[in-house]
Amino acid sequence: MDSFAQKKAYILEQISLNSEDNPDDSPKGTIDEFLKPLIATINGLDDFVTTSSCSGRVSVFLEGEKGVEEGGKVTGKGGGKWLFVSHDPKEIEGWEKKVFGQDDKMAEEWLGHVAPQTSLILFKYEAMILHVQCRSLLAAQALYSTAMGCGFRESGIGSNNNVAIRISLNIGCPIGYGEGDNLHLLVPTSYLQLLTQQSRTLFTENFRRMDMLHRAIEGLQIKKETVEETKEQRAQRKRQEGLRRQREKMEAQRADSTNAHLQS
Amino acid sequence: MDSFAQKKAYILEQISLNSEDNPDDSPKGTIDEFLKPLIATINGLDDFVTTSSCSGRVSVFLEGEKGVEEGGKVTGKGGGKWLFVSHDPKEIEGWEKKVFGQDDKMAEEWLGHVAPQTSLILFKYEAMILHVQCRSLLAAQALYSTAMGCGFRESGIGSNNNVAIRISLNIGCPIGYGEGDNLHLLVPTSYLQLLTQQSRTLFTENFRRMDMLHRAIEGLQIKKETVEETKEQRAQRKRQEGLRRQREKMEAQRADSTNAHLQS
Repeated sequence: MDSFAQKKAYILEQISLNSEDNPDDSPKGTIDEFLKPLIATINGLDDFVTTSSCSGRVSVFLEGEKGVEEGGKVTGKGGGKWLFVSHDPKEIEGWEKKVFGQDDKMAEEWLGHVAPQTSLILFKYEAMILHVQCRSLLAAQALYSTAMGCGFRESGIGSNNNVAIRISLNIGCPIGYGEGDNLHLLVPTSYLQLLTQQSRTLFTENFRRMDMLHRAIEGLQIKKETVEETKEQRAQRKRQEGLRRQREKMEAQRADSTNAHLQS
Repeated sequence: MDSFAQKKAYILEQISLNSEDNPDDSPKGTIDEFLKPLIATINGLDDFVTTSSCSGRVSVFLEGEKGVEEGGKVTGKGGGKWLFVSHDPKEIEGWEKKVFGQDDKMAEEWLGHVAPQTSLILFKYEAMILHVQCRSLLAAQALYSTAMGCGFRESGIGSNNNVAIRISLNIGCPIGYGEGDNLHLLVPTSYLQLLTQQSRTLFTENFRRMDMLHRAIEGLQIKKETVEETKEQRAQRKRQEGLRRQREKMEAQRADSTNAHLQS
């Protein structure tokens, strides 16, 4: 087993051990359900192993305490709190009621008076992201091109042949602010429903692109097998081509000499 | 002149020819003012040439006509219209009055009834993005690591040693919709002011990161010069080291033989 295969076996073992009771380092702790088929395909190929992933999600986050340095740099003091996270478009309906309660009203009097250090409530839709460790630069380049071809235009090769597969499908905006334990809305509740609707549209597009990528990566394997077959058969083909050329040359020489006889 | 230097000279000539009267392919047509110092530094290095860039911007865009296919895929029919674009935090104050007029009211009755094919008005803050063509994979890897170290964590190496330098500092959300020539707001005007304030904070952070990157890329040059000096002096140093070791060895042998005399 070469060193890449050893590393891959170790990573796959770690993944297989993760569960809700034994989570990995991510907030969720396990691989997102919707990514499992794609990840299985990638990890089924000798040249690749996935190292981190998110299938796409809606999140609502309350920022932690912040400060403002001289020069205007806003510094987060860490902390913060996830108010809602879902990877499933079927589960996002009505998230605003879970976060803000049934009868929360827009805090109109506060609008425009939010300071840079106010802890904002941020709504985000983020698309799929996938990091794949590749055996070689060639493998990384093949995966990178495949991802770009499927519309993952923010992809790139990082250190150590690790490819980040990214697509720019996102929403990100403040929707309210926190004051102690109280959460206040800065937009109408119906605007939150528009964000839900837009997120659902982005989820659809995200999954469509993921399917496209899945098919393309399966195709990558087939292409590689074809190339490998050709390699094996290359020597034989070359020998046959050489023999054919030699035969043609001899026949041409014979024809030449025939012509020469006719010309002389 | 090698092929990279030729390509670079051609690109730099094109850049120098671009002006408001002779724009490049970007919507703006010329290099953003705030990026000129960084771009000058990068293009002053033998191994790099910038191929596209944006210094960071606020934009307000009215989507073109859309359709919805079976299966939920929303298709853009192109078109669309830039309602506001600015790269300068000093110019964004009051953009909402330019776009929506003085007394535009929030279209409350429409909220929650926006269909997936409705042409939305999208507000965006986007951070700096820079593409740099590099002479070699080694040069691309050095630039990539430098950018990552400065917080441009979405950076990546693409095809042909072209490095994309990206950072995730953004806002992106719908703020209204278009109906014929009429623009309607879906959020209170004061929420737009909050977006302006947030954009100003992101501009500050964006420029701080750009400065950091600028200094780090200057450092990259110094480091390289040091390495080059060492390379030139390496042969001489090695010769001197060799002579020293030879002298030490001879002295050691002499000492050995002296010791041997004493031991015998």
